[in-house]
This record gives sequence, structure tokens and C-alpha cells, in this order.
Amino acid sequence: MPELATRLTRVLQLRHPLLSAPMAFAAGGALAAAVSRAGGLGLIGGGYGDLPWLQQQFALAEGERIGVGFISWSLAKSPSLLAAALEHRPAAVMLSFGDPRPFAAAIHAAGAALVCQCQDMQHVRDAVEAGADVVVAQGAEAGGHGALRGTFSFVPEVADYLAAHAPETVLVAAGGVADGRGLAAALMLGADGVLVGTRLWASREALVKEGHHQAIVASDGDGTLRTRLPDIARELAWPPGFTARIRRNAFTERWHGREADLAQAVAVEGPRYRQAFEAGDPENTAVWFGEAAGLVHAIEPAAAIVERMVAQALDRLGLQRPAAA
Amino acid sequence: MPELATRLTRVLQLRHPLLSAPMAFAAGGALAAAVSRAGGLGLIGGGYGDLPWLQQQFALAEGERIGVGFISWSLAKSPSLLAAALEHRPAAVMLSFGDPRPFAAAIHAAGAALVCQCQDMQHVRDAVEAGADVVVAQGAEAGGHGALRGTFSFVPEVADYLAAHAPETVLVAAGGVADGRGLAAALMLGADGVLVGTRLWASREALVKEGHHQAIVASDGDGTLRTRLPDIARELAWPPGFTARIRRNAFTERWHGREADLAQAVAVEGPRYRQAFEAGDPENTAVWFGEAAGLVHAIEPAAAIVERMVAQALDRLGLQRPAAA
Repeated sequence: MPELATRLTRVLQLRHPLLSAPMAFAAGGALAAAVSRAGGLGLIGGGYGDLPWLQQQFALAEGERIGVGFISWSLAKSPSLLAAALEHRPAAVMLSFGDPRPFAAAIHAAGAALVCQCQDMQHVRDAVEAGADVVVAQGAEAGGHGALRGTFSFVPEVADYLAAHAPETVLVAAGGVADGRGLAAALMLGADGVLVGTRLWASREALVKEGHHQAIVASDGDGTLRTRLPDIARELAWPPGFTARIRRNAFTERWHGREADLAQAVAVEGPRYRQAFEAGDPENTAVWFGEAAGLVHAIEPAAAIVERMVAQALDRLGLQRPAAA
Repeated sequence: MPELATRLTRVLQLRHPLLSAPMAFAAGGALAAAVSRAGGLGLIGGGYGDLPWLQQQFALAEGERIGVGFISWSLAKSPSLLAAALEHRPAAVMLSFGDPRPFAAAIHAAGAALVCQCQDMQHVRDAVEAGADVVVAQGAEAGGHGALRGTFSFVPEVADYLAAHAPETVLVAAGGVADGRGLAAALMLGADGVLVGTRLWASREALVKEGHHQAIVASDGDGTLRTRLPDIARELAWPPGFTARIRRNAFTERWHGREADLAQAVAVEGPRYRQAFEAGDPENTAVWFGEAAGLVHAIEPAAAIVERMVAQALDRLGLQRPAAA
């Protein structure tokens, strides 16, 4: 397997410039370990603060060199979670959706790389102030939580900002990256690597119910939208400015544009939403994938996905030609 | 000046795989001619049906080989505009925002290439059915009218669709393409070239008032939003699903989320909007640029913009290395 070396592979000591997204509930230890074994860096999704689950997932990663990601505003409510995670000596800790600065010192003191996911230029300025080793520029096409900037012009704008203000900070592109074309394009835009969510959500190792996996295979990229509905149904206090990209289905059809009504009905609708989620019902709960659904045609092992992405990117970039000559 | 050859340059007989966006009001004959002289294909913006203006802009292009673009739902109301444009023997006619099929035969009969701009997969299927020679996949980061899909994952999804269903149809990426990094990335994603709006809106030849040009230079890419406000203020009957990306300013601050109020106040607010637009007021009217504003730092001649884009893309793609050896 040829390697694709960038600043990201050097900083994080990887064979390939690829991180898996720490998707809450879906990105457990098996997925993280599989991505790391394939040459990238797999991240467990720290989610909303379930310590026993997190410990279990670290155990499932069986000592593989991995990282972990947290939702910053949620971590701020249970900061002991970070200390527990750092005891597993993760190679990197990714922080998204909130101020990274309160956690930066502890992460660096534990010898982990600080990865800050950003959705707009203000987040990037905050990440640089926090001393981020890696900035992830996440575009709005991403599945799950995010904001408004599109990947295509956000990535080069962040590249310019980092070149001027923090030239040692490494840049990763996220949002819509699902194959080797996306990896190659991200490098052209000025990124040093990619973070892959949706495409690895659609892997065998992801903790995703069968009905939800079938839904992404059946969907094209038009079949999603950005909404606050799942956060209302789960009564999660997401800060303003963030929405979740999920599948368009009966749940979004029924409630999109009627957010206040859902909030009022949450005593009934909340349990119904959670029950449907647990059952893998693709219609009456949120199904967490992004616009890259249009590039996903099968549920495959994570290693096969990573290896194909790298091989296709190398081919696009023409980097195999010298070796072939 | 080195050339960058793709399927687009062959189909449209260009030196460089780059079209300028036919931006209503801003893309006149001078801009179109300058882009064509620089090796791309410049398109006059046919706008909302002002025939004398269109004739004047063709005259200003002084016989340069150019194209023209129309807003399909508006063209359907004054179809004689197309016949008048075809008398100028444009190299290409681009249709956006509506059904292209009623106009396809006349365009092909006049020897022009049919270029269909698409915002989702249904538009792509319609374009193929219309016999499009070129499909433009336009992402939501674009300035002006558009829809919801992000450039980064929409382009490869359209590339896959065309490869399977219309392999002769050429693909152009639009939305957030403002420098050579974007051109190179678009080629990696599977496009054969790019369509450039915002970056050429910020050119000397664009018909844009000084105050609006100053606003884009001052803005980063976070400074825009998608909204129906300008269409309400101008009483233009845009079909559902399309919004305009414009600068965040006093106008959007005042009315965003209060669309019905603006519609009710349009007898007063409409003339106020138009007056501010004519005066180049950057605050009290729509200012038409996209997220690529974060990549625009100066108003320059169109030729310089095009030449730098191509040179930077060639450099990124490593295509100059053989020549330099």
C-alpha cells in the first residue's frame, strides 16, 4: 500500500492524512481502531458525557493508537470526562462546537495533539489562540452538527489565515469528503488532510443500525437537510448557530418549520424519537448522514474505504506515476 | 502563458477551462470579452429581459467570441430574448433556474453549446434530458441565486451521474471557485472546468458600483447569507427552492426572518432598495457576492484574475514540472 505523506502525517505520525470523525454514538472503539490500523487516525466519539460507554469503547480499541473527540459545550458541563479519556493516552483530542481554550493545557500536558474543529473564521481565530496543533475546517455539507460555511471556499480561506497567523498549525478539511477525489481536492485547496464522517458512518464497524445503513445506500446527496429538530427532540441545549444535517424523512417532513410545536410536544415525541432511533427506524427519528450520501453505495469495512480513498487520491494526484515508470 | 487542456476546452474550443458566470446586471459585454480574450469563455448576463441592455452589451463585446446566460423561468416569459441573443451567434447559451427543455432546440440549431446550470440531482437529470453539452454543478456557496447542495460533494456526485448516463456531457464546477486552488480542486473532484462568479464580480470590468466593490474587499467569507429578501424587495417571482446569497448588511439585518413584513412594505421599501443599489450603497440593498469573498483582496482586471488562476492551478497540479525540466 503506497503512502500519502503530508504535514498532517508528520505531525500525527500517520501513514495516511485521514482522520475519522468522532461521531457521537456511531464512532466507537472498533471503528477508531480499524481506521488507525488502516493508516489514518481513528477517533472515538465522546458524545454527551457517558463515561461507562467511553471506557467500554477505549477497551474495544484494544490498545490501538487512536484519538477521541468531544463536544466542547457538553464537555464543559462534565470536565472530568476529559481526564478519564486522557488516561488512555490518546494520540489526539478533538474539540468541536464551543470554546476549546479551557481544555487546551490539559490535552497538551497529556502529550496529545489538540485538534480544533471550526465552522467559521471566528472559530479559527479561537483555535489558534487555544494553541491548536490541527484545525479542522468543517463545511456545511457534513452530516451531523455543523454550521453554514461550504467546504470548498472555507478550506482555502482557513489555509490563508493559518499561513499568515499560525504557520505551524496543520489544516484538515471536513464536510463532503467521501472518496479519493475529495481527498485529492482537499489537498489542492490547501488542506494537509481530511476528516471523514459520513463515508465511515457507512462502514461495518460504525455503531449504526441496519435500517439506517440501508437508508444511506438508498439516498442521493439531495436527501438531507440542516435542522435543529433532533436537538429539540432530545432536549439537548445546543448553542445557537449550530444545526444538524440529517436525512430528510417522515420525522423532518412532519416537524421542519414547526420547531416550537415539537418542543411543546417533547414529553410524548422525545421518547418516541429515542425508541425509533434504538430500533433503527429510518423514518421517525434522525438519521445522521451528510450530503456525501450521494457518493456512498455500499456498507463496507472501514479499512477498505480508507485504502480505496488513498489509492484513488494518489492516482488523481499523479503521485503513482514515478513509481510505475 | 501555458494552457490547461480538458474536455471543456475541447468542447468549447478554449485555451483555459473557465467560464465567467452570467451575473445579472454585473456581467456585461466588457467583462465577457475580457474573460474570452484571456482564454476562457465570458458570458453576458441576460438577466430579467431588458433587450436594449442586452444588445448594448453584445455591442460592447466588440465581436469577441462570447456566450450569454439566461434565467430560465424569466426567459419563459419573454422568449423572444433568446432569438435576439442567438442572432449574435454566441458560442454558448447557459440556462439556469428553470426547465431548459423548451429552449434547447433553438440553441442547438443556432450552433451554440447548451450549458445547463444545476443545483440538485433532479436538475441534472433534466439537463441531460434537454441534451446539455455542458452541465454546471453549482454549490450553495455561490453568490447570487442558487440552492442548497454544497460544491464539494455535489460535483463528484454529478460526475458519477454523467459518467453513467451522458458520458459525452462535460461538467463544470461552480460555487466558491476563486483561485487556482479551486480550479485544481474542481478538476480533482471530477469536473472538466469551472464557472467563476464572485471572483470576477470583483473585477474592474464588472458592472459593480465602487461601494459594493469596497464591501467585498473588506469582507471575509463569513459575511454572507442565503435569503429571499432581494427578490421580495424587487417583486421578482422566483420559484420556490432558490435563494440569493448576498452580503450580510443593514438590509439583511433589518429584514431577515421578517420576509412577510418586507413584502407588505414593498411600496416604500422597493424604491428605497433600488435607489440604494443604483447609488452603490453597501448597506441598504443587496450586495451580490458569495462565500469566496474571503479569497478576494483586491479589485483587478479580469485578465489578471484568469491568468493567475490558471497559473496557480497548473502549479498545484504539477503540470508545469515537465516544461520546467
